[in-house]
Amino acid sequence: MLASMSEFDLIARYFTRPVMRAALGVGDDCALLRTAEGMQLAVSSDMLVEGRHFFADVDPSRLGHKALAVNLSDLAACGAQPLAFTLALALPRADEAWLAAFSRGLFALADVHGCELVGGDTTQGPLNICITVFGELPKGQALLRSGTRAGDDVYVSGTLGDARLALEALRGRITLPAGWMAAARLRLEQPTPRVALGLALRGIATAAIDISDGLLGDLGHLLQASAVGARIDTSLAIDLLAGSPDFERAEGLLHHEARLGCVLAGGDDYELAFTAPVSARTAVQAAALEARTPVTRIGHIESAPGLRLVDAAGQPVSGQFASFDHFA
Amino acid sequence: MLASMSEFDLIARYFTRPVMRAALGVGDDCALLRTAEGMQLAVSSDMLVEGRHFFADVDPSRLGHKALAVNLSDLAACGAQPLAFTLALALPRADEAWLAAFSRGLFALADVHGCELVGGDTTQGPLNICITVFGELPKGQALLRSGTRAGDDVYVSGTLGDARLALEALRGRITLPAGWMAAARLRLEQPTPRVALGLALRGIATAAIDISDGLLGDLGHLLQASAVGARIDTSLAIDLLAGSPDFERAEGLLHHEARLGCVLAGGDDYELAFTAPVSARTAVQAAALEARTPVTRIGHIESAPGLRLVDAAGQPVSGQFASFDHFA
Repeated sequence: MLASMSEFDLIARYFTRPVMRAALGVGDDCALLRTAEGMQLAVSSDMLVEGRHFFADVDPSRLGHKALAVNLSDLAACGAQPLAFTLALALPRADEAWLAAFSRGLFALADVHGCELVGGDTTQGPLNICITVFGELPKGQALLRSGTRAGDDVYVSGTLGDARLALEALRGRITLPAGWMAAARLRLEQPTPRVALGLALRGIATAAIDISDGLLGDLGHLLQASAVGARIDTSLAIDLLAGSPDFERAEGLLHHEARLGCVLAGGDDYELAFTAPVSARTAVQAAALEARTPVTRIGHIESAPGLRLVDAAGQPVSGQFASFDHFA
Repeated sequence: MLASMSEFDLIARYFTRPVMRAALGVGDDCALLRTAEGMQLAVSSDMLVEGRHFFADVDPSRLGHKALAVNLSDLAACGAQPLAFTLALALPRADEAWLAAFSRGLFALADVHGCELVGGDTTQGPLNICITVFGELPKGQALLRSGTRAGDDVYVSGTLGDARLALEALRGRITLPAGWMAAARLRLEQPTPRVALGLALRGIATAAIDISDGLLGDLGHLLQASAVGARIDTSLAIDLLAGSPDFERAEGLLHHEARLGCVLAGGDDYELAFTAPVSARTAVQAAALEARTPVTRIGHIESAPGLRLVDAAGQPVSGQFASFDHFA
């Protein structure tokens, strides 16, 4: 780092704010967290690496947002209320403009959710952002991956596929109209964690997971944890999970399978996939309304393991839609 | 990563073990942590970067140990009982021998402290290890940096300086006798977090900090947080904080100021610096005995801000002993 700013100056300038709910915040050896009676803590860590999870020239304000958003998305998938987070940051150098923008984006999202930075670490090294987030929820009420049963409906929140389209465009593999590209890029670089929906689904959803690596892959983890399978109607997926309002126009830009691939296995969506009993359909829609987050029913759970993709007529859909794996 | 092992395989093979105390461990969107009635959670994050915190060719088993040890050291400084940790790991490639050794060293130390891996993240990228550790302690009993008062004694646990000597030897700047080098290198690469001492000092010490960047720098943070100063007897430091049994022989290898520099500002020691009232001297020694960790009294707290180094006769000691700053 530049000799002009020590690690301590950097933390003081960009990452120290008044303590809110935590008993003790940034600046001691540990942060101390309170949890209320009858509550438990949900904890998740995500690490973002330059070149792997974001491009070197990404807007640092959006990166600050995304680094926290991907962690809040894990809390959402558990139905936990965000409480606090730690930030560990490796930086090649102390670029003050970068730090100012990064911390601005980070705290803007943190403030939306009342989620407090309580500690962390900064060091010199290849750009790496590791956030550990803490949420609170009543004991025994967490949405897990393992609670779904045969017959349950399968839902997805919001829209899927735009983030992948933006990624492919940034890689120069496709070209999107400017307005659509701007919207898709916002989805990629500044995703919206579905925290309110996760909270509203407590007691309604039987299982949930956030979609970070692609719908099929992440839904597959949920099915595996619950030891069941699912039948997904791709006509609902392609039509109702369409990303931006312009998505339909993609027919002119992308062939059907590429569009379906973006929806089913695009990755970086940070929507929730969840299941609920048929008897809870009204409750699910009420939760979606309360959370101001659209949800779409795309299929149902079956006893037989595996994921079966079918068209509107119930016929099997072929095609390889591999989930995005950071180590693929 | 090698195509032969996905992120999920890697986690399953090297980082998944049966759940112990956490309500839910590795494998869902979040880990869920229980805290008992009347307890609070202490949280700390540390990030280790290749080339900055360790050499590329370090024994991966020792690195696994150290990555957790530096975090447990923060819990020790707060007087917290280790409970659980998350691990986020960026790896250039999936080297199975490396992973096997790393996880072996990591879990060996975790098991000593009953500290459970509850979640995390793995990704491809320049080698980076980020651990967030959770400890438990009764509400209001944390050892803070801010509680010391004028007149309190200043103590340091164990020994200081060997880690820096090993670092300088590995950098080729000095040469140490082989036996001493092996011992010093162990201190650098496999430090012992003073968890038992931190627990034993609850209710006795008025303030504590762990020594990661060097005694003077870290003690300086404690003094600043408590708005006081200190007088440190360097004759006690040089004589009683001597690292390995061979340290005395360093007189023939290193001049006095270099030895003092290693002790006062070497860094990577992971000992505790703490303060306690004069009336608690017997209690401090009893705590040290209980924790089987030697402690040495090296000075006392004064109202006037600043750190004053004096010799055995009380005369000021000159010399620049800058603390190791990861961004210096």
